[in-house]
Amino acid sequence: MSELAERAGLSVPTIKYYVREGLLPPAPVKTGRTMAYYDQAYLDRLRLIRSLREEHFLPVRVIKQILADRGDRPFSPDEAALLARIGPAVLQRIEGDATTVPRAEVLARYQMDEDDLDLLIEMGLVGDERTPGQFGVNDVALLDAMRDAEQIGITRERFPVSGLGHYVELLDELAKREVRIFAHRTIGLPETEQLELAQRAIAASEPIVALIRRKFILRAIRTELVTHTHTSHTKKESP
Amino acid sequence: MSELAERAGLSVPTIKYYVREGLLPPAPVKTGRTMAYYDQAYLDRLRLIRSLREEHFLPVRVIKQILADRGDRPFSPDEAALLARIGPAVLQRIEGDATTVPRAEVLARYQMDEDDLDLLIEMGLVGDERTPGQFGVNDVALLDAMRDAEQIGITRERFPVSGLGHYVELLDELAKREVRIFAHRTIGLPETEQLELAQRAIAASEPIVALIRRKFILRAIRTELVTHTHTSHTKKESP
Repeated sequence: MSELAERAGLSVPTIKYYVREGLLPPAPVKTGRTMAYYDQAYLDRLRLIRSLREEHFLPVRVIKQILADRGDRPFSPDEAALLARIGPAVLQRIEGDATTVPRAEVLARYQMDEDDLDLLIEMGLVGDERTPGQFGVNDVALLDAMRDAEQIGITRERFPVSGLGHYVELLDELAKREVRIFAHRTIGLPETEQLELAQRAIAASEPIVALIRRKFILRAIRTELVTHTHTSHTKKESP
Repeated sequence: MSELAERAGLSVPTIKYYVREGLLPPAPVKTGRTMAYYDQAYLDRLRLIRSLREEHFLPVRVIKQILADRGDRPFSPDEAALLARIGPAVLQRIEGDATTVPRAEVLARYQMDEDDLDLLIEMGLVGDERTPGQFGVNDVALLDAMRDAEQIGITRERFPVSGLGHYVELLDELAKREVRIFAHRTIGLPETEQLELAQRAIAASEPIVALIRRKFILRAIRTELVTHTHTSHTKKESP
């Protein structure tokens, strides 16, 4: 455990405390009275807990909840069945209007570079692999929003399309966790109620996400004004 | 390098390709003609690249951009100076109205549990450490949005406040990267122009974030309908 503690950058008592609080299971493989083997997944979980505490200041009970709802956990059969039942109806109601716009029209309407459009498609931000060359209502709304941003000075020269990669990385992870959590928390509800709730949850969560992001952006600006000097958190180890 | 490849779950030629493409620097410490040491930071970077490619399907040029804008990179002196100059004005214009609401009024207005409010404060979602016990305009807007969600059935019993931990984790990371990238991309602009752009960028990016998230939520629902069986990505290793 002392080697584990060193690799995770935590103390042995802290790890024992996490085990006691139920954040971590006890050692997966006991190899003696005072020895145990821990696998990479265990170390990863410990590092995640550490970052949630030290970088995100989350209390233990919240971390426990996050780990219980863990995004990389596969769907249980119940959750998969729930999605299979209500998913198509949710998709249909939210995707709504099935009108699509062909590629040539998108390029002309937004005076867009072929390369930029291809990059947006490759990143999964617009288009749909089931109907290549066609763009849906959500796609048009996104391209409109990007054009609006451009017209007020957020130009593609200064902020290239490739910079949207951060949104892909983090919002994709968020979306996956949200769908999992929704499935997890609504098992057992009558089907029509789940469907209604799913639609309303998507709409109701949009302002919540926008306001939380705004809060964090202001904090990030403020933090940098206070603590001008930053040190890297990276802990060096030889593997 | 073969040990590194195994730990990262990649092949040696793939790692060499990443080095050639400039995604990774060459081995940090050469220990012989055919031997080298790689530190944990190197392995972490490699794992990030792998996940950006395999889970987020990002092309190499986008990954390069993301790594160049990497969120955990400290601010350069130029970027810190930029924030110090325009930051206070951005904060003032966006935080705008300095009206605050005291704790007792928040508890009464939203019929909120003391525990839930404390948890929201602890998570950094509402309140401001500079004015404890007081809640600003953004806080009130967030509490309003949460109450609206509750009234249409996203109840606290089913979706407890602690479930917002995912937003804290991922949106905080997103906000930090966005502020860094903004600072990085606007160095050299005249100060008044930077200030105007910062304000407009925050407003213009909100619909973009909402639409991308919506796209990914729909995809997450759809993916699960197609591939019902999931296998865990976790690679077991004994440390």
